[in-house]
Amino acid sequence: MAQIGIAGGSGYGGVELVQILRRHPQVEIAWISSQQHAGKKIEEVYPHLRGLLDLRFSPIEELPTSGLDVLFLSLPHGEAMKIVPGLDQDLIIIDLSGDFRIADSKTFEEFYHLPPPSPQEQKSFVYGLTELKREEIRSARRVANPGCFASATLLALYPLFQENWIKGPVFVDSKTGSSGAGNSPGATTHHPWRSNSLFPYKPFAHQHLPEITQLLSKPDTPVIFQTYSAPFVRGIFASHYMELGKSVTDQEVADLYESYYGSDFFIRWIPGCPNVSFVRHSNFVDIGAATQKGYLIVWSVLDNLQKGAAGQAVQNMNLMCGFPEETGLDTAPVHP
Amino acid sequence: MAQIGIAGGSGYGGVELVQILRRHPQVEIAWISSQQHAGKKIEEVYPHLRGLLDLRFSPIEELPTSGLDVLFLSLPHGEAMKIVPGLDQDLIIIDLSGDFRIADSKTFEEFYHLPPPSPQEQKSFVYGLTELKREEIRSARRVANPGCFASATLLALYPLFQENWIKGPVFVDSKTGSSGAGNSPGATTHHPWRSNSLFPYKPFAHQHLPEITQLLSKPDTPVIFQTYSAPFVRGIFASHYMELGKSVTDQEVADLYESYYGSDFFIRWIPGCPNVSFVRHSNFVDIGAATQKGYLIVWSVLDNLQKGAAGQAVQNMNLMCGFPEETGLDTAPVHP
Amino acid sequence: MAQIGIAGGSGYGGVELVQILRRHPQVEIAWISSQQHAGKKIEEVYPHLRGLLDLRFSPIEELPTSGLDVLFLSLPHGEAMKIVPGLDQDLIIIDLSGDFRIADSKTFEEFYHLPPPSPQEQKSFVYGLTELKREEIRSARRVANPGCFASATLLALYPLFQENWIKGPVFVDSKTGSSGAGNSPGATTHHPWRSNSLFPYKPFAHQHLPEITQLLSKPDTPVIFQTYSAPFVRGIFASHYMELGKSVTDQEVADLYESYYGSDFFIRWIPGCPNVSFVRHSNFVDIGAATQKGYLIVWSVLDNLQKGAAGQAVQNMNLMCGFPEETGLDTAPVHP
Amino acid sequence: MAQIGIAGGSGYGGVELVQILRRHPQVEIAWISSQQHAGKKIEEVYPHLRGLLDLRFSPIEELPTSGLDVLFLSLPHGEAMKIVPGLDQDLIIIDLSGDFRIADSKTFEEFYHLPPPSPQEQKSFVYGLTELKREEIRSARRVANPGCFASATLLALYPLFQENWIKGPVFVDSKTGSSGAGNSPGATTHHPWRSNSLFPYKPFAHQHLPEITQLLSKPDTPVIFQTYSAPFVRGIFASHYMELGKSVTDQEVADLYESYYGSDFFIRWIPGCPNVSFVRHSNFVDIGAATQKGYLIVWSVLDNLQKGAAGQAVQNMNLMCGFPEETGLDTAPVHP
Repeated sequence: MAQIGIAGGSGYGGVELVQILRRHPQVEIAWISSQQHAGKKIEEVYPHLRGLLDLRFSPIEELPTSGLDVLFLSLPHGEAMKIVPGLDQDLIIIDLSGDFRIADSKTFEEFYHLPPPSPQEQKSFVYGLTELKREEIRSARRVANPGCFASATLLALYPLFQENWIKGPVFVDSKTGSSGAGNSPGATTHHPWRSNSLFPYKPFAHQHLPEITQLLSKPDTPVIFQTYSAPFVRGIFASHYMELGKSVTDQEVADLYESYYGSDFFIRWIPGCPNVSFVRHSNFVDIGAATQKGYLIVWSVLDNLQKGAAGQAVQNMNLMCGFPEETGLDTAPVHP
Repeated sequence: MAQIGIAGGSGYGGVELVQILRRHPQVEIAWISSQQHAGKKIEEVYPHLRGLLDLRFSPIEELPTSGLDVLFLSLPHGEAMKIVPGLDQDLIIIDLSGDFRIADSKTFEEFYHLPPPSPQEQKSFVYGLTELKREEIRSARRVANPGCFASATLLALYPLFQENWIKGPVFVDSKTGSSGAGNSPGATTHHPWRSNSLFPYKPFAHQHLPEITQLLSKPDTPVIFQTYSAPFVRGIFASHYMELGKSVTDQEVADLYESYYGSDFFIRWIPGCPNVSFVRHSNFVDIGAATQKGYLIVWSVLDNLQKGAAGQAVQNMNLMCGFPEETGLDTAPVHP
Repeated sequence: MAQIGIAGGSGYGGVELVQILRRHPQVEIAWISSQQHAGKKIEEVYPHLRGLLDLRFSPIEELPTSGLDVLFLSLPHGEAMKIVPGLDQDLIIIDLSGDFRIADSKTFEEFYHLPPPSPQEQKSFVYGLTELKREEIRSARRVANPGCFASATLLALYPLFQENWIKGPVFVDSKTGSSGAGNSPGATTHHPWRSNSLFPYKPFAHQHLPEITQLLSKPDTPVIFQTYSAPFVRGIFASHYMELGKSVTDQEVADLYESYYGSDFFIRWIPGCPNVSFVRHSNFVDIGAATQKGYLIVWSVLDNLQKGAAGQAVQNMNLMCGFPEETGLDTAPVHP
Repeated sequence: MAQIGIAGGSGYGGVELVQILRRHPQVEIAWISSQQHAGKKIEEVYPHLRGLLDLRFSPIEELPTSGLDVLFLSLPHGEAMKIVPGLDQDLIIIDLSGDFRIADSKTFEEFYHLPPPSPQEQKSFVYGLTELKREEIRSARRVANPGCFASATLLALYPLFQENWIKGPVFVDSKTGSSGAGNSPGATTHHPWRSNSLFPYKPFAHQHLPEITQLLSKPDTPVIFQTYSAPFVRGIFASHYMELGKSVTDQEVADLYESYYGSDFFIRWIPGCPNVSFVRHSNFVDIGAATQKGYLIVWSVLDNLQKGAAGQAVQNMNLMCGFPEETGLDTAPVHP
């Protein structure tokens, strides 16, 4: 059994890792940290886990220097980069924050408002969008796990960029559930405010944008990226609008995505209209599209805490540890 | 007191009319119909109105032939056109359905899948987007009240089209609450399904699109229009994405909208990000925008049953009857 | 026009007062305070009010010493009692907090965990449950406005206590919306947590209980009072369970409530099952009941920010100022 | 692998069975029926299952006469009793409807408004509340799976009835999510109506009451049972109010439940306040309580489609088939 550590285990990303890894047949959670809840049992903080795990939060300072095979870092932006330099080169590290996702230091600073990690440390991380980087991940020791918005948009746009289908800009209208804001209460996640509400935030400035343009870059195809807060808890629904250089049929669109993702278990082509609730509590990404007269709308949906965070992190761990990619991620989306 | 009739008073548009007109100081609801609930008191169907109105639903066949000053038609698409030909030419008619909104018969058939009204009857109606057609409405006897999606998008795009700001297509991503589907239960408004859900519908084919393109038409600026069902009850949140021919500042955008709508009580410019909950249960339309490097995002939000239906219908009635435009529409949005 | 001051105007109770008083034809909001937002315009804090009011929050220290006719205190528990001693005896004061509701100092301390106000100040306040204390309120200068839970339960139980219908304890299961927790974000109003959630809190210890037992006290009829947090924003739904000394008919129950509240505009008898959404955004209290074999269930529902706070406060102001009781409170509940 | 049939597989109970059994290591879904969707693939009806199961709905008439080891009946009330008489005596049958739960024919008719099954067929079924009937279920061939409300209340009250703690009536205030109404849209599950709503229904008359009183019957302790519709999708939150003959401590209450359920994996004692969201999408029942001065409130919460329907059905199948009781039911509740 691989021994797992989770730094930052009391955030939503951390507890989702716990929920997944608890049932993973080839791993054991050996250590978990939380600054705010150090000393408490996990079920004191998350009563839904009562009786299911005998874990107690340690302070981050007690990170074991040996005995762990895999360390997940699920810390606020800026924290992982403080810890990583002191870690063993052989330890498998999967960082769920944005610290090591961005190669360009200046871009990192612009979007994260933080000093960047050292270029050397940054380069030691592979960008962990599994379906697009599978072989690199398999042989990596360190993975920068992608952002939830970036995962949705990159998977939607990648085939179109590769095949040069797009003419002109792509406009992305991406709606997130409230769990994307993490488990600290705030003004825009206050229930009386968020309930029955929908509003944009961070125009042109969301920190997941540079992840997207780093991987998808064409001079004539800027990505205009706008995020929205929607009144559900789980999920990202990303809409991508663009003009093509020519008219295509629905079947040609379906074929394109089939040719790229047909063998990827976690990516599903949806013939009609996807729904953010069709992937809830699962690691699936559903992609669908509509086209008319040379215009194309592509939709991608995922669960922000699964494929958008902890699920993809486990998918990456499976690759890095040589486990079958779907291990521990076999639950269906839940409905209703 | 003007005597008011409401045909189709048990739908959400109808009951919203009742809620507004009940407090309107210059009118009296004299007659209200419902096929499904004929014979019942309104409070039997809508218990929240218990004790507040002494109204009983009539069948449509009992529409009085005299004594009414204003008749609101809040019937399913296709029904108003059956009734209008028999109505007095002097009666003020405000039709909340799509029957008389579209001048082109072929377009009507394509989007409504219904035989069109006679061109003569259609021409007797003025398109009732108040702020853009105020003078025509003031002197009209018959108004085709706009669709909720169309109202949001037309008000957002009108100044940009008028001033030729846009280069290339406009992509519209418009999210509606569940009350937009009316009060008949259906699969996509079933609570276990709709709750926590978000999904597109009618790609390229929503019946409000021809209202938009009829009023805003430029050969090089097609409007790509996509509607979404969101998990709130009230409201339309419309996002408009486009490229401009040049870079503009935030202030220039604000000035543009100020110059068009600065004297319109019900249109508010929002400097930051609008929110669908900031206009709830009111007749306001909030407009905001963000711009960068020659790209522009314009947001418009309204309450689909107020400015998107009954509120605008009363606003139009006020103009047609010579009442101050805000009469009966003075309630603030409600929060929380 | 009566000149109104609102101390604590940025909380949900305060902003609800603003929304109501803005349309009240006989008053003018002359002054409003907020410690957190002193110096800001109200629309900066509550953008849904944009363009509707030209009010700026003052610090509480700038409370005018003259010129106000009515002062609403909408401050956290413990704050009103610091201010009241310095206020003019002739000023009409309506306190929305719990500070002056409880006559017994020891009980106050037990439930509020605060030092009590001086007995003399406390006695200068009349308990403002309008329908039960109308004449006292009319001639009072100071009113302690009741708690939301207390209003619902007192109105439901009062006729039963008066007529000695109940044998044994009354069990109260009262469910509140999230706005009852105020506008400061917290763990149990965090959207990802509160959404889809329902849970009890403060077993046997809610601070509204002593308001209830102070007014309704019978040795053999203890009131067992349990509050719940429900996943809606607005409203209280209170269920009252009890055994009667004898069997009664549905009609006898209806007649009882009719005899007590038949002439009260804001109390409505609902023949079937009430719904918390039937009173939303209104000052109504809906009461309904079911009975069988000598057992009785009574339901009372109200909007916690209207009849449960600001609405009732304005209703009391109307009485104290000699205005018609319904002035400014004429909006119907909103649906959907 | 045990071969499983599911009659009525397109309802919420049926699809929940599918979601659970899909991951059950010792069974295979061999046949599934739906009248409404006969001929369709399950993923056409439930797109969240796309790519996960290759099942097609048959009409009920094509129920295989051999080859099945277990048949789940998840049909509307009244349908199972038509099918059961023709079924093989050796087939393991688990009926999720109410058809065979009630021993007394007259009571069945009164609450179900249907002709009862033959007494002989009824007697061939064991009442399947697992923790209270484990040994009978283990040796049974046919199980009448309990109702969701009944499961919650029976587990909460059983120890109290057994130990004669209660003096006088028990009042039950039980709140259900919208999925309890099934997957057919209706007036009270219409999103604009149900959202932000809470209301009682079927006073004194819910069909789960006779299941409760059949198992728990004491002349001096009537169960007064009231159901509510709450605005969440999943779960039952049941509150039980009663007077005891004596005062007890919190610890004595905890000890009582520990002594009854301490070894039951799926029943968890919650020291503070339970929450309906702590058991979501799991087979757990959380029980908690508060007591003061001889009054006791007991709370029990469960997921209506899991422990309240399909989860318990699988738990019973495991017993009847000799599998470990938790097999296939090992997922933790999900949060957020």
